[in-house]
Amino acid sequence: MTRKGVPAIAALIVALVFNGPTHAQEKSVPHVRIAELDIDPAQIEAYKTALTEEVETSIRVEPGVLALYSVYEKDNPTHVRLLEIYADVDAYNTHIASSHFQKNKTGTLSMVRSLRLIETVPILLGAKPR
Amino acid sequence: MTRKGVPAIAALIVALVFNGPTHAQEKSVPHVRIAELDIDPAQIEAYKTALTEEVETSIRVEPGVLALYSVYEKDNPTHVRLLEIYADVDAYNTHIASSHFQKNKTGTLSMVRSLRLIETVPILLGAKPR
Repeated sequence: MTRKGVPAIAALIVALVFNGPTHAQEKSVPHVRIAELDIDPAQIEAYKTALTEEVETSIRVEPGVLALYSVYEKDNPTHVRLLEIYADVDAYNTHIASSHFQKNKTGTLSMVRSLRLIETVPILLGAKPR
Repeated sequence: MTRKGVPAIAALIVALVFNGPTHAQEKSVPHVRIAELDIDPAQIEAYKTALTEEVETSIRVEPGVLALYSVYEKDNPTHVRLLEIYADVDAYNTHIASSHFQKNKTGTLSMVRSLRLIETVPILLGAKPR
């Protein structure tokens, strides 16, 4: 395989994983959730560190955790937003039962001033590797 | 290369693209934006069709458009949310100047009851291809 071929294959894999189930009539449909949090300003850096650790672990060890995008609002740095993409609802349930999720949840309880969870339905999850 | 090696390489590429710039001191930092829209209920299907076409085109033809995730809220199906990931701010500026973006913008003007744009700063953009 040429080096040129690798990104093309990567693109195909991502396209299949992220876009396939929303178009095809497959059993597994990605489970996509949004979380909106307001964090105690005095603890925002500790919160980011804990979140980063939890996201890295989840992506590395959980086959069904496809993406966990975390950002904060430029104009409101204590407003954190997550877009979470799981292979299916079972993968989400596995995630929230995991020890790393529970550790993060317990460890950040005092940092979170408010939390809004929004269940969503994908329209199109368009992504590519470059 | 074994078949087993391909997903690993794909994972690496995605990790580099999505996670690298937020960790390393690189020139290009992903530009991540959120859009929240409320769509006229009578035109929601037409809006989804137009959005899907615009996302597919952007991902296919624009090197700097890394991901455009579009979902609607399960409890409020006219509330559409987008998470947009561009390679950098230049890629975003190229995107909004593109003919397909402008066509979508003009074509859906009458469908959009409200639009909120949120500039964000990545904490961690965690993703993998499987």
